Amino acid sequence: MASTSSLSLSQALLAPAISHHGSAHSSDHHRLSLSTPSLPSFSGLKSTPSSIPLTTSSLRRRLAARQQTQIRAAAVETLDATAETSLVEKSVNTIRFLAIDAVEKANSGHPGLPMGCAPMGHILYDEIMRYNPKNPYWFNRDRFVLSAGHGCMLQYALLHLAGYDSVKEEDLTSFRQWGSKTPGHPENFETPGVEVTTDTLYWEMVVKWRIANEACSLAGHWGLGKLIAFYDDNHISIDGDTALAFTESVDKRFEGLGWHVIWVKNGNTGYDEIRAAIKEAKAVKDKPTLIKVTTTIGFGSPNKANSYSVHGSALGAKEVDATRKNLGWPYEPFHVPEDVKKHWSRHAAEGAALEAKWNAKFAEYQKKYKEEAAELKSIITGELPSGWEKALPTYTPESPAEATRNLSQTNLNALAKVLPGLLGGSADLASSNMTLLKMFGDFQKDTPEERNVRFGVREHGMGAICNGIALHSPGLIPYCATFFVFTDYMRAAIRISALSEAGVIYVMTHDSIGLGEDGPTHQPIEHLASFRAMPNILMLRPADGNETAGAYKVAVLNRKRPSILALSRQKLPNLAGTSIEGVERGGYIISDNSSGNKPDVILIGTGSELEIAAKAAEELRKGGKAVRVVSFVSWELFDEQSDAYKESVLPAAVSARVSIEAGSTFGWEKIVGPKGKAIGIDRFGASAPAGKIYKELGITAEAVIAAAKEVS
Amino acid sequence: MASTSSLSLSQALLAPAISHHGSAHSSDHHRLSLSTPSLPSFSGLKSTPSSIPLTTSSLRRRLAARQQTQIRAAAVETLDATAETSLVEKSVNTIRFLAIDAVEKANSGHPGLPMGCAPMGHILYDEIMRYNPKNPYWFNRDRFVLSAGHGCMLQYALLHLAGYDSVKEEDLTSFRQWGSKTPGHPENFETPGVEVTTDTLYWEMVVKWRIANEACSLAGHWGLGKLIAFYDDNHISIDGDTALAFTESVDKRFEGLGWHVIWVKNGNTGYDEIRAAIKEAKAVKDKPTLIKVTTTIGFGSPNKANSYSVHGSALGAKEVDATRKNLGWPYEPFHVPEDVKKHWSRHAAEGAALEAKWNAKFAEYQKKYKEEAAELKSIITGELPSGWEKALPTYTPESPAEATRNLSQTNLNALAKVLPGLLGGSADLASSNMTLLKMFGDFQKDTPEERNVRFGVREHGMGAICNGIALHSPGLIPYCATFFVFTDYMRAAIRISALSEAGVIYVMTHDSIGLGEDGPTHQPIEHLASFRAMPNILMLRPADGNETAGAYKVAVLNRKRPSILALSRQKLPNLAGTSIEGVERGGYIISDNSSGNKPDVILIGTGSELEIAAKAAEELRKGGKAVRVVSFVSWELFDEQSDAYKESVLPAAVSARVSIEAGSTFGWEKIVGPKGKAIGIDRFGASAPAGKIYKELGITAEAVIAAAKEVS
Repeated sequence: MASTSSLSLSQALLAPAISHHGSAHSSDHHRLSLSTPSLPSFSGLKSTPSSIPLTTSSLRRRLAARQQTQIRAAAVETLDATAETSLVEKSVNTIRFLAIDAVEKANSGHPGLPMGCAPMGHILYDEIMRYNPKNPYWFNRDRFVLSAGHGCMLQYALLHLAGYDSVKEEDLTSFRQWGSKTPGHPENFETPGVEVTTDTLYWEMVVKWRIANEACSLAGHWGLGKLIAFYDDNHISIDGDTALAFTESVDKRFEGLGWHVIWVKNGNTGYDEIRAAIKEAKAVKDKPTLIKVTTTIGFGSPNKANSYSVHGSALGAKEVDATRKNLGWPYEPFHVPEDVKKHWSRHAAEGAALEAKWNAKFAEYQKKYKEEAAELKSIITGELPSGWEKALPTYTPESPAEATRNLSQTNLNALAKVLPGLLGGSADLASSNMTLLKMFGDFQKDTPEERNVRFGVREHGMGAICNGIALHSPGLIPYCATFFVFTDYMRAAIRISALSEAGVIYVMTHDSIGLGEDGPTHQPIEHLASFRAMPNILMLRPADGNETAGAYKVAVLNRKRPSILALSRQKLPNLAGTSIEGVERGGYIISDNSSGNKPDVILIGTGSELEIAAKAAEELRKGGKAVRVVSFVSWELFDEQSDAYKESVLPAAVSARVSIEAGSTFGWEKIVGPKGKAIGIDRFGASAPAGKIYKELGITAEAVIAAAKEVS
Repeated sequence: MASTSSLSLSQALLAPAISHHGSAHSSDHHRLSLSTPSLPSFSGLKSTPSSIPLTTSSLRRRLAARQQTQIRAAAVETLDATAETSLVEKSVNTIRFLAIDAVEKANSGHPGLPMGCAPMGHILYDEIMRYNPKNPYWFNRDRFVLSAGHGCMLQYALLHLAGYDSVKEEDLTSFRQWGSKTPGHPENFETPGVEVTTDTLYWEMVVKWRIANEACSLAGHWGLGKLIAFYDDNHISIDGDTALAFTESVDKRFEGLGWHVIWVKNGNTGYDEIRAAIKEAKAVKDKPTLIKVTTTIGFGSPNKANSYSVHGSALGAKEVDATRKNLGWPYEPFHVPEDVKKHWSRHAAEGAALEAKWNAKFAEYQKKYKEEAAELKSIITGELPSGWEKALPTYTPESPAEATRNLSQTNLNALAKVLPGLLGGSADLASSNMTLLKMFGDFQKDTPEERNVRFGVREHGMGAICNGIALHSPGLIPYCATFFVFTDYMRAAIRISALSEAGVIYVMTHDSIGLGEDGPTHQPIEHLASFRAMPNILMLRPADGNETAGAYKVAVLNRKRPSILALSRQKLPNLAGTSIEGVERGGYIISDNSSGNKPDVILIGTGSELEIAAKAAEELRKGGKAVRVVSFVSWELFDEQSDAYKESVLPAAVSARVSIEAGSTFGWEKIVGPKGKAIGIDRFGASAPAGKIYKELGITAEAVIAAAKEVS
C-alpha cells in the first residue's frame, strides 16, 4: 500500500494465477470453494499433463467466473467501517505516534510516510485484509507490500496492532537496532508478516513510478483485476517538491498502461473516500487499479508537515511535543490506548477462524481431489516430490555436442513434468534463451493456468516478479531468462533475490565472447566476477550436459539462495569425467594422470573453456606431464566443501596452476595463487565470428599450454 | 531515428542546452547568430560568474526566442523533397540492399530494421540533417542516434552514401568482422559518424520503451522541443507479435509524459507523410515529439517480411533473390547506382559549406565576445584551462574531520569555477550526495543556462544522459550522483560509459555499512569488486580531504574513462601522509617505520578503513613492529605503475599483509597474497548504528592488529 514501486507491483503481477497484494478480496482466488463441485478451484497453475482435471479450459473459466461473482459480493460487505470514526481516528493516531516515537527513540528513520499514510494503513489492516496474525504464513492470506520500504514503521505499527508476535512493544522500541525484528527497511527474512524485502529507492513513491513501469505495463497487459496499488501522492521528494523533476501525468500514463485509475483527494481524513475507492477498484474486474491518494507527508506535524524535512529524520523532541498537542495526543511514547487495543484484538480470533475455515475446506477438497490437493500441498510446503531428480538427463562423451542453453531447455522441460511449481520465461528472448516449456502454453490474461511467462523486454520487472513468485510459496520455483550481459538491467532485482532468500533460477545465456558478432555491448566480461562477489548467490557455469543437469539439481534444491546459470550460445562437446555430483561440490577433478595428489600442473576451467583446458591437458600429457583438469563450475559451492576435499582437488603444495575462463581474471588469483596464471579477458570484447575472437584474445589451448609450461 | 530507447533519448535530453538528435533544425541552437548582437548565442551553459554577459536572463530569453523564430522559418524550407520520388525510392532501395548484402556476406546480422526504416533514414540523412561528412566532429552538426543498435547497417549504409570516409565499400563488405569499422552494433569509438554506442537490448523498439521511460519523462519535464524521436512501430518482437507481452497505448503514455505524438501510418512508402510529420514536430516548440512510424519489418522480402524471422539473421540466398525481384533490383551486391551516388554526392560540398559558414560566424563572434568564445572553444576542444588543478583544495591532519561526500562538494564547487563544462546533479539525493553547485541555479525548462541538473529518481536515465553530455563535446564534464548501492539501477549505463569512453564522473556516496540504520538494502558490499572487474573504469575510494581532491584531479583528467568515486556518509579524519599525488599512483605509502623496504607487516586500507589501518599501525608500532600503511585508493591506477614503483610499495618479499575494506574481500587475494589476510564483509550488512555494525562485523583496528600478529 502507499506503494507500488518496482518490487511491490511486480511481485503482485502474477495475482490472478498466484499472488495478490494490498487488495481486499484477492485471497478469494486461493479460497477453496466447493460450491462448484466439478471445479478444483486451485486452477492457478496448470498441472503436469498427467494430472490435469478432466474439464475443458473453457468450462473451467466459466465456472471460475461464476465462483468469483459470488465471492465478490461477499467481499464487498466487509468494506464498511468496523468502528466509529472517532475510534478510527484514534487508531490512526496510534499508528502515527508509534512511528513518531520509534523514529525518535532510534534518532533515525522516516516518520513522514507513516504519518501521511496511516489512514490507508488502518483501513487496509483493520477493515480489508484477511490474515491470521498468529500464523503469518497461512497460505490463503492477503499479501501486503510496502514498496516504500523506508516507511516501514507504518507496517511495524500495523503488525503490532494486529497482534503479530513478530512485532511486540520491545521490537518497536528497538527500531533500527542491531538484532531487532524491526530493521530500517522491511526484511521478510527478519520479520514474519513482512512478505518481501523492499529495497533501496522506495522514497515517496510519487517519483518512483519509472522503476515500476515495466511491472505496471505487464499488470495492464495481463489484466490483473485483483491488484490494487495505492499511490501516495504527497508531492514531496527528497530534494524538494516533486515538480523539480517530475511533471508528468501519472493518471494518464497509467490509463495508457491499461489500468483503472481512481483519485482520492483527501487521503488525510477522507476515510469514506478511501473505502469507496477500494469498492470501486474491486468492481473493476479486468484491470488493475491505481488509487492515487493525495496525502500530506508528516500529517499532524505543525512545522514540518508537507516538507522534505519530515521524510528521513526524527522530528525532534520539540516538534514531537507540538505534534502531540496538534493531534490531541496526551499519551506517553509507545502507548496504545485501551479502546484501540481492544478494537484490534479481534483480529487474532477472526484470523484463526478464517484459517480454520479454509483448512476445513481444504480437508474436504483433499477427499474429493486427492491428486490436485497433494500438488497444492507440495506448493504450500515446498516439499519436492520424491525422486524428482531422476528426471534430470545424463550424458556420455558420445552424446552429441550441444550448446548449454539447449541443454538447459532439456532440463527445464524434464523438470516441469515432475515439479508442479516450476514456471517462468524470458524477456523476449525465449527462442534464444531456449526457455519454452513445450507441454505448456503461454501464461496470458485468459490462460492463467499455463506456465510459459512472456515478460517482454522488461528484465528488472522480470526479476522482481520472480522474487514475488518465489516468496509466495515455498513450492513455487520461478525461472527467468535473458542474455547474461543484460543482468546489468536487473541487477537490483537479483540482489534482492539474494538478500531476501528467494530461490529464483536465472537462466542467463550467451555468456561470453562466444556469442560472436553482436560484439562488446552483448559480451559479458566482468559479470561472472561481479556475481561471485555478491553474497548469497550461486553462480554456476556448467560446461556440458552433465554439468547443466547438475546446475539444475543445485538450483532446484537451493530454495533460499538464487542461482544464476551462465550458459553458452555455442555448441560444446560432452566431456569425459563431468558429473552431476561434481557440480554439487562446486569444483572437482574431471581428469588426471598424476599420482599421490602431486600433478605437475593443474588446469582449471569453467563452462565453455573447460573443453580448452581438457584439450591442453591432452597435449601436455603427450609431452610427459602429469596434468590434472579441474572443473570450477561454482566457486561458492567449492568454498563450502571440507578442507580435506579442497586439498584433494587443489593441493596447497601444487602452485603450478593455470585457469582459463572467457571473462575477467578478477578474483582468480585466489585460485591460481601468485605463482599460477589466470587466462581471461580484461578488456571489452569485439564484433567478429566467435572463433576469431577467442583466437585474437588468446583464449586458446595453445595459451594454456604455454602458461602451463611457464609455471610448472 | 527509428529510435529512442534509453540511450538515444536520454542522451538527447539536454537538447535545449547542449545536444539534439535526429532532428532537422536542432543544430540551430549552436549556430552562432549575430543578428541579435547583444546576445552571445552560446547561452546553453551558464558561464562561471566572472564571465556572465551583462544581459538579464529575461532579456536573454526574449532574444533567444526571436532568434529561434527566424531560424525555424528557414529550416522548414529544407523539408521539401530534394529529389524526384523515383530517385528517392531508388535511394531507399539502395539502403535496403546494402544492408541485405552486408548481412548476407557476414551471414550474421539484422536485416529487418534497415529494410523497414530505410525511408525514414533516407529522408533524415538526405533531406533533413546538417552535417559535414568530411568532418564528423564538426561541433554544430545534427546528431543522430540509432538506439536500436542491431539495425546498424541502416546507419552504415547512410554514412556510406553521405560520403563519410569511415564507411567505404570495403567497410560494408567486412561488416561484423574482426577489426572492421562496421561492428555488429554501432560503436562511437570505432566509427566516426556514430555519435554514441548503442548497446544491448535495442531490438525492435516497440517493446523497448520501458528503459527509455526515465529519459522520456525528463524530456517531457524539460520541454525539449528540439527533440524528435522516431518510433518504429512494426509490431514484431523476437518472440513473435508484440501483443504477446505488450498491449499498452504508447501514444497515451507519451502524452502523459508531456510529449507531442504524431502517427505516420505508412512508414513504408509514405515519404510525404514522414516529411509532414517532421514539419509538424518542428512546429511544436515546447514539447519533444514522438513520431510513431508504422513500418513493415523486412519490407520487400516476399516470404519473411512482417515476421520475427527477418529480425536477426541473414535472409538467405534464395530470399535475397526473391527480394531483388520483388523490389525490382537488378544490381550486384553492394552496388550503388550512379544516379543515387550522384544525388548523394552533394553532401560533401554542402557540409563543408555549412561548416565554413559556421566557422566564419564563430570568427566574427570571437572578435566581439572574446571571453565567451574562448570558453566555447574550450568546450569544443576539451582543452582544460591552464592551472585548473590549483583550484583543488588541500588539507592537513589538523583540518577538521569531514565526510568525503562533503569534501566532494567542496571540490565540485571549486572546480565549477574554473571548468566551464562541469555540470551535473543527483537522482533526488542532492542534499545527501552533496552535489549542489552553490553559485548556480537549477537547469530547468526556463533556465537551461544553469548547471544543477535535477534528475529525479531516475538512475539509469541519469547515467545515460551523462554519457550523452560527455560524448557531445570533449570539454563537457558531466557528473551524477546517487547512493553507491543504487549503481545497481544504472549499471548498464555505467558499462556504456566505460565501453564508449565517456569520461563521466560518478559521485557515489553512502559507500558502505558506515551508512548505518538504513540497513542491508542500502549498504554496498560487492560493489567495489564489481566495478574493479569492469574494464575501462576508474574505481576510486578516497580516505580524506587530500584523497578526495586527488580523486577529482584524476576524474577530470580522464576524459575517456569514467570515474566512480565511492564516498562516505560518515565523518573521517584527515590523515597524515595522504596526498593528491598519491592518489594519482593508485596505491601509495602513507606511513612507515620500517627501513630497507622490509616492513614486518603491510597494512592496506581504502576509504573510511584507511583510518582503521593507520590506528592499528600506531598500536603495532608501540609493540615494536615495523609497519607500513598503504592507501589503495584505486587498483586500476596502481596496476598502471611501473614494476619498480609497485615493488617499492608492496615488496614481493613481504608476504605479511593485511587489508581492510568494508566490502567484499573478493579480489583482495591478489593484493594480500596467500599468506596475507583480507578483512572485509562477505555477507549482507544490517540495520543498526554504524559503529555497532563495524564492531559486530569485525571491521576494527583490533581485528587488523590480531591479523597482523597472525601473519607476521
